[in-house]
Amino acid sequence: MVLAEYLDGVRKTNPLIHHLTNYVTVNDCANVCLAAGASPVMADSIDEAADMAAISSALVLNIGTLDVGKVESMIVAGRSANVRGIPVVFDPVGCGATPFRNRMAAEIMDQVHMSVIRGNISEILSLGGEHIHTKGVDAGESVNSEEARVLAARLAEKWNAVTVISGAADIVTDGKRTIIVHNGCKEMALITGSGCMCSSLIGAFCGASPEDCFGSAAAAMITMGLAGERAWKKYGQEGLGHFHMGIFDEIGKMTGGILTEGARYEEY
Amino acid sequence: MVLAEYLDGVRKTNPLIHHLTNYVTVNDCANVCLAAGASPVMADSIDEAADMAAISSALVLNIGTLDVGKVESMIVAGRSANVRGIPVVFDPVGCGATPFRNRMAAEIMDQVHMSVIRGNISEILSLGGEHIHTKGVDAGESVNSEEARVLAARLAEKWNAVTVISGAADIVTDGKRTIIVHNGCKEMALITGSGCMCSSLIGAFCGASPEDCFGSAAAAMITMGLAGERAWKKYGQEGLGHFHMGIFDEIGKMTGGILTEGARYEEY
Amino acid sequence: MVLAEYLDGVRKTNPLIHHLTNYVTVNDCANVCLAAGASPVMADSIDEAADMAAISSALVLNIGTLDVGKVESMIVAGRSANVRGIPVVFDPVGCGATPFRNRMAAEIMDQVHMSVIRGNISEILSLGGEHIHTKGVDAGESVNSEEARVLAARLAEKWNAVTVISGAADIVTDGKRTIIVHNGCKEMALITGSGCMCSSLIGAFCGASPEDCFGSAAAAMITMGLAGERAWKKYGQEGLGHFHMGIFDEIGKMTGGILTEGARYEEY
Repeated sequence: MVLAEYLDGVRKTNPLIHHLTNYVTVNDCANVCLAAGASPVMADSIDEAADMAAISSALVLNIGTLDVGKVESMIVAGRSANVRGIPVVFDPVGCGATPFRNRMAAEIMDQVHMSVIRGNISEILSLGGEHIHTKGVDAGESVNSEEARVLAARLAEKWNAVTVISGAADIVTDGKRTIIVHNGCKEMALITGSGCMCSSLIGAFCGASPEDCFGSAAAAMITMGLAGERAWKKYGQEGLGHFHMGIFDEIGKMTGGILTEGARYEEY
Repeated sequence: MVLAEYLDGVRKTNPLIHHLTNYVTVNDCANVCLAAGASPVMADSIDEAADMAAISSALVLNIGTLDVGKVESMIVAGRSANVRGIPVVFDPVGCGATPFRNRMAAEIMDQVHMSVIRGNISEILSLGGEHIHTKGVDAGESVNSEEARVLAARLAEKWNAVTVISGAADIVTDGKRTIIVHNGCKEMALITGSGCMCSSLIGAFCGASPEDCFGSAAAAMITMGLAGERAWKKYGQEGLGHFHMGIFDEIGKMTGGILTEGARYEEY
Repeated sequence: MVLAEYLDGVRKTNPLIHHLTNYVTVNDCANVCLAAGASPVMADSIDEAADMAAISSALVLNIGTLDVGKVESMIVAGRSANVRGIPVVFDPVGCGATPFRNRMAAEIMDQVHMSVIRGNISEILSLGGEHIHTKGVDAGESVNSEEARVLAARLAEKWNAVTVISGAADIVTDGKRTIIVHNGCKEMALITGSGCMCSSLIGAFCGASPEDCFGSAAAAMITMGLAGERAWKKYGQEGLGHFHMGIFDEIGKMTGGILTEGARYEEY
């Protein structure tokens, strides 16, 4: 599929994206979905998690502010999505920071098959079984790029899921094909939800093109990165608050043409 | 009452508006209350729901991210408001989407008397007993306007509550009188909380003028719609993020004069 | 320590600030931490509250949307911080409004030693044992300034904690030294989180300079007040939405030089 078609697909199909996510960045995630042309719904009660997932086009599970009850709902929603072939996106926020997060992330991975897993290098390493100390929830340890690519591909194979590692350059791989995304700017780490919004946008794109989660994930990362660059260029001088709003501006105004022209990535 | 007086009343009395609402749009709802001159307080623990409602000028119940515990708190708060004659505004977010939501909405309606009920056509139809599939939580099914008006009036009589159906044109009715509000713009559906903020603003206006919830509801819908139009006119070219902030700008700067001049509605 | 060094310290050390806070202003609090150069993490499950506090530089406890479970987590996190000498900042939001809040605030104070306590005059009076009716959660009763300073110093001694009373002029005292901060503008009360963000910023500064919580608290209040003034000057004419974003702009662009030049305070 051509890059622009992934975005056009979201605006055309207006997919329903069911989120079980954290209460810190939930408003950012909902706004990014709306701006992209999707319909976000946040429903985490155990009494409706399965039913809501069942009528959705994609499911996003984000453990940012997890607790045992929420994890149970995530598993129930995840299984409901799995039996129906609905794509599930997992964001293991802060994995590696505490034993509880590690245990819960592992439990979720054990019970739910993911279509896409997106995190920073610390989180992905931790989820994959290596114990790296995670600083806060948006840190990026500098691991040699070549190493990171090989690791990501290995984990994608192991998990049978598209694996996305966010960083200065993002890695998107299904174990066989890899796309390195160069769009983005470091200032995105200075506003809330830069990672969480990527996962939600991946959900929106997968909801529109469920048969191609690899391409959807890459297209979403390129879209977010490009929106960030354009927003920083326009509002960086104003400051972080206007930059934050600028991201929603740019996602809302993003067209296939702007995306195609501004995309900077390599395929392996 | 004259339109401008409803808004002036909020700024003069600075009513305390108790919310039991969802964690997706809660920040938007709080900001819209503050911008209008009200004092929002969000308190949903079963241990203080009744006490907080008791000292408030109005209560807003919004089931966007409901669970059993929250519903119990809503009922307790609602009953506390009812015995004191404090207006209660109900927003049946996503009613129709899942059996759980339908059951909980019905339970709340059964236990608490509402002064105002506001939702989109899908939600209101579902709450009223007709099974229409609700897409996401801010969809607007196109139901013939004449039909919708008749339905709204019938439900308002049945519920003994002012009924508000948000749409391209909003319907506000108490069963006898009906106001159709033409203010607003379709782009409001592209940012979070366009519906939820209406319900909160209705709460703020009712808190200031509890003796006239019909006029308050209409004035709130006109205010929100007009703020949205003005914000889109000013920031539409920038984009959705700046438009979103523009809505708070306009609510904050709204005067009786601007409101009176910009209001577009019909009374039946 | 010189004023500018407190801010520089945050940007240099990028302290991890663990929050157990309310879901209304949590996004504002996270953004203000990021803008100042800190790393916010919001984790409130009883299963990881102690572990997350243990790896943090400071802990912020905010009871805005409390419930019994959250209070238990706050106490567990607070004790974990206490045994490790990690500064704890307490924001008794709405203390005085309901018996439940009063009980929970007292319980938390009984179990956790605070480094800094910040609230408005109503909340602090209530926490200290005087029953004043709290309106909403950001009201400021006008209590004679001299009286307020004496009271604050007395409470700081009693609590063995830096006590901050936000108001037209903020009082920061450790019982012996007092700083009155004049920076700020009244319009800050018209956007969400003006108080909560102060507490988070105090957490960020204490996280960077834990040996000097008095100076950190004062520097944080000056920083927030100055950012608010500058943002209002720049965006007041646009409106509250842009003003809100302007605050994050100003915190993000705040330098030691701007802070030193714009600070308006007196030391006693």
